[in-house]
Amino acid sequence: MTDLSKIKSPADIKKMTVDELGELCGDLRKALLTKLAAHGGHVGPNLGFLEATVALHYVFDAPKDKLVFDVSHQTYVHKMLTGRMEAFTDPAHYDDVTGFTCPRESEYDLFEIGHTSTGVSLATGLAKARDLAGGTENVVAVVGDGSLSGGEAFEGLDFGSTLGSNFIVVVNDNDMSIAENHGGLYADLRLLRNTNGEGQPNYFRSLGYAYRFVKYGNDIRSLVKAFEEVKDSKVPVVVHVVTQKGMGYRAAEADREHFHYTGPFDLSSGDPLHISTKPTWTELFYSTMAPMMEADKRVTVITAGTPAAIGFDRERRLKAGKQFVDVGIAEQQAVALASGMAKGGARPVFGVISSFLQRAYDQMSQDVAINNTPVVIDIAATGINSMTDTTHLGWFDIVLVSNIPGWVFLAPTCKEEYQAMLRWAVKQTSHPVAVRQPSGPVWESGREFRSDYSKLNHAETVRHGSEVAIIAAGSMMQNALQAAEILRSNGRQVTVINPVFLSGIDTEKLNNLKANHRAVITLEDGVLDGGYGEKVARYYGDSNMKVVCRGVRKEFLDKYDPAELLKECRMTPELIAEDAEALMK
Amino acid sequence: MTDLSKIKSPADIKKMTVDELGELCGDLRKALLTKLAAHGGHVGPNLGFLEATVALHYVFDAPKDKLVFDVSHQTYVHKMLTGRMEAFTDPAHYDDVTGFTCPRESEYDLFEIGHTSTGVSLATGLAKARDLAGGTENVVAVVGDGSLSGGEAFEGLDFGSTLGSNFIVVVNDNDMSIAENHGGLYADLRLLRNTNGEGQPNYFRSLGYAYRFVKYGNDIRSLVKAFEEVKDSKVPVVVHVVTQKGMGYRAAEADREHFHYTGPFDLSSGDPLHISTKPTWTELFYSTMAPMMEADKRVTVITAGTPAAIGFDRERRLKAGKQFVDVGIAEQQAVALASGMAKGGARPVFGVISSFLQRAYDQMSQDVAINNTPVVIDIAATGINSMTDTTHLGWFDIVLVSNIPGWVFLAPTCKEEYQAMLRWAVKQTSHPVAVRQPSGPVWESGREFRSDYSKLNHAETVRHGSEVAIIAAGSMMQNALQAAEILRSNGRQVTVINPVFLSGIDTEKLNNLKANHRAVITLEDGVLDGGYGEKVARYYGDSNMKVVCRGVRKEFLDKYDPAELLKECRMTPELIAEDAEALMK
Repeated sequence: MTDLSKIKSPADIKKMTVDELGELCGDLRKALLTKLAAHGGHVGPNLGFLEATVALHYVFDAPKDKLVFDVSHQTYVHKMLTGRMEAFTDPAHYDDVTGFTCPRESEYDLFEIGHTSTGVSLATGLAKARDLAGGTENVVAVVGDGSLSGGEAFEGLDFGSTLGSNFIVVVNDNDMSIAENHGGLYADLRLLRNTNGEGQPNYFRSLGYAYRFVKYGNDIRSLVKAFEEVKDSKVPVVVHVVTQKGMGYRAAEADREHFHYTGPFDLSSGDPLHISTKPTWTELFYSTMAPMMEADKRVTVITAGTPAAIGFDRERRLKAGKQFVDVGIAEQQAVALASGMAKGGARPVFGVISSFLQRAYDQMSQDVAINNTPVVIDIAATGINSMTDTTHLGWFDIVLVSNIPGWVFLAPTCKEEYQAMLRWAVKQTSHPVAVRQPSGPVWESGREFRSDYSKLNHAETVRHGSEVAIIAAGSMMQNALQAAEILRSNGRQVTVINPVFLSGIDTEKLNNLKANHRAVITLEDGVLDGGYGEKVARYYGDSNMKVVCRGVRKEFLDKYDPAELLKECRMTPELIAEDAEALMK
Repeated sequence: MTDLSKIKSPADIKKMTVDELGELCGDLRKALLTKLAAHGGHVGPNLGFLEATVALHYVFDAPKDKLVFDVSHQTYVHKMLTGRMEAFTDPAHYDDVTGFTCPRESEYDLFEIGHTSTGVSLATGLAKARDLAGGTENVVAVVGDGSLSGGEAFEGLDFGSTLGSNFIVVVNDNDMSIAENHGGLYADLRLLRNTNGEGQPNYFRSLGYAYRFVKYGNDIRSLVKAFEEVKDSKVPVVVHVVTQKGMGYRAAEADREHFHYTGPFDLSSGDPLHISTKPTWTELFYSTMAPMMEADKRVTVITAGTPAAIGFDRERRLKAGKQFVDVGIAEQQAVALASGMAKGGARPVFGVISSFLQRAYDQMSQDVAINNTPVVIDIAATGINSMTDTTHLGWFDIVLVSNIPGWVFLAPTCKEEYQAMLRWAVKQTSHPVAVRQPSGPVWESGREFRSDYSKLNHAETVRHGSEVAIIAAGSMMQNALQAAEILRSNGRQVTVINPVFLSGIDTEKLNNLKANHRAVITLEDGVLDGGYGEKVARYYGDSNMKVVCRGVRKEFLDKYDPAELLKECRMTPELIAEDAEALMK
């Protein structure tokens, strides 16, 4: 057995024989599985790319040679070998590392990466800079087969081959994206796997690469041999490595989609340790869509490679049949496809995580808004109570969507309003409509909501008061109502307004407030800069109405505490009430 | 000779023999050239795709069959054949049509398209909607070889082949983008051209398409034959058509880059009718960059397929050598490449048109901002006095760039400040920096500017006054100063402030204004929503300072009159002065 604690850097494995490397792989796998079972994380990708990571560090000389890991879902072993072993072997240190490459942690990590399909492009930049400086180090980009479906990965590959110098792309082909792969390219990868890399057409060769196939991508000997062959290559080369997602852990090999990323699980059975039965916005999206899809065969749900994030597991996908489309990790295609479908009379609904929607801004503007096609986008994982990784923050969609002309952007405050808005969005055909899932637990208000949102920018007064009005968008409504209760118990009656729309303000309502209010507080579950509150501030700019905007500061946080952040933003019920009191003085 | 005025719809060419079609092509070319010489426009693409357009309308039955033209630079002949002949034969009607497909003009135009690489994706949506509805019409996407370098085109092709039904992609291969092509893919297209389509690897086959090669893409007979073969195809198929850009006009065949798009020219010589010798921002970018590139071999200019738009003609590109990179029409790659280069110690400067920068929003956020790589972006064609096509508006970059954490966004007001900012941006290595070229004619203020912008958000008071302060960003400074002069002649002294930075406000300066000012007017050459003025309005929200924000309304205009729009926005010197007067009362 290898003493893992002695591996402080890749230098410590370079003296090993290939047999010893094989043993090391077994020990790394055991340690990794122990942590993953207790802690959760990206199981499948890391187990599958374990041997390849060992071989990369054995053959190449990082950090002199540059390793870039696309999306960095497969970098746990890289971290283990580059001075961060303890974070995988000692439970007290499990949280010392992030789930992604992170330059703050180590000089072996070149970029903070969490979005897919960016790694090859970033690596081309390192290679170009090297060529300008006359350097000789190897530049190696690791990219999964799933990531190849993203346009940026194509652009990077297409450019990379023109460098005419050392540029090594390691394609980690486990025949899976997060879920199954989608796209014509994958038939070609299958052909290559089935012909020992010798078949034609060959996608990588068509883009100008030399090509090396590795049939047994979990065999350390094959990998070392292949990497030694391409090391110091003078031309761009693709090393196509066939790996087994979840390798060496039966449960993960059997259910590759579930074990792509999972919470803590029982190591012997693979069963999850915690099963939440709480309702989620994800489930609500599915349960709201399903009857509409049943009733109208034109209604179609689209995902860009993240079906589980919008509630469509395998069984539901099969049931939806032609009415469910996974375009691969290709948000641009998802939005443009939706526009074409809407133009053709279908009713497309693109379900997407907030942070990934920004990959399709131009398509939302050009392909959709300018053409006014009635596309529906359901935005998941928004706001403060959502993903807290710096690469996955759900804070930026308000500024993106609300400032494109033509988009109707709805902010439901509770379960009932979310369903009403989603139903209307699918039914109507006058506008592109985005619906922003609130963040945090599903709130059932028990209230009834309008079924027609065609009167644009029409806000709703939820509570009538005077002096101060709180305009609370989406998730923030609960806090506003609680603040109003606190104030009432102090003998103050404030007005509470649900703006309903983020894409425009209700000028009539705002104007009427002037009669018996002197201040407005806006609350939004997103970045202040470019957001909703600023529209209100501008509207009141030349009046005597005071405006205080609350939201998140413009900055990238990482692994923050949502409750703390809410406090810092002064958006807890208590602090909202405190601010309202102060404005009444 | 064909009587072109008799062609009211494609039905009028369907009775013709193939020989008559050939004659028609000659007559269309003559008419088209006459208009182009007098009017300017996309010469090369339209001449090259003339026969193919005639053949498409001869074989397919639009509007039942759906034709989608990527980027729509090649749709003049399509317009001529679909009820808009007069706009090409009668000078009085030349401006009746836009330069792009336009659903407002005709039911034969399905989408308003002006950005590259979107057409295949949009067409997949039409095909998917057809399949859901059980329709049988043909869906045909036309895409140029240059456009294939864009990630969205890849995503669309990759998805399109999985439709498993009729989906016809016509690749118009003229071996050119706007300038020459860049990317590994183009070696493969060359191979296919040189092997009569029979060589391997074949990029299109690797993505799962059936494949038909047309060697003589300006021969009507070959085209009709090929299109008849693929009509009603039950599977996705690529028709690879080799055409001659600028076909049939010697000057355009000889200088394909210049004649991609040109102003009016002398038909016999091909010489431009109007040569402007006025200084341009484009030239200023080049003349500022060139000495920096000379002095420091790490300084590299990047374009995404539009070298002329940033002042790099063929000769200058050759001179720059390795320090100039054209990544193809691939903005995502351009930004990520820049990030990798900056990380690797080079000094990349991506020069890009405002409207195209939005294609790389996610890369600006994830690949650059989160990694804080000192990338420089020079944004051209911004603001009101720029491109007036609805697909190319330069109004949206302020909201996009200024609200991403970490970016320093500079707004020069004049030639001298532009140069100072660009030089600093390249010299420093602390931040990603975007510099926004002003719009309209180059203004030489004759003033000196700071050479160091490292004190972030530090604004400059250009003129000291009281009561009212005008905060004028970028291009708007001239108008603000003229307004101040008008006011002075009325005995009023206003303050004029250059914000310098769009990415943040100078809170100290804004706070100090409160002492002897009661109102602020903000002026910006972009959309108000999410823009600079709103940040000022939010800052002053809880104070007594009145704020009036001026900028462009959130809407898509088309072919607007810049002078009129400036008036509507109340940003002419006279109207600024009038508003300031009113605020003093």
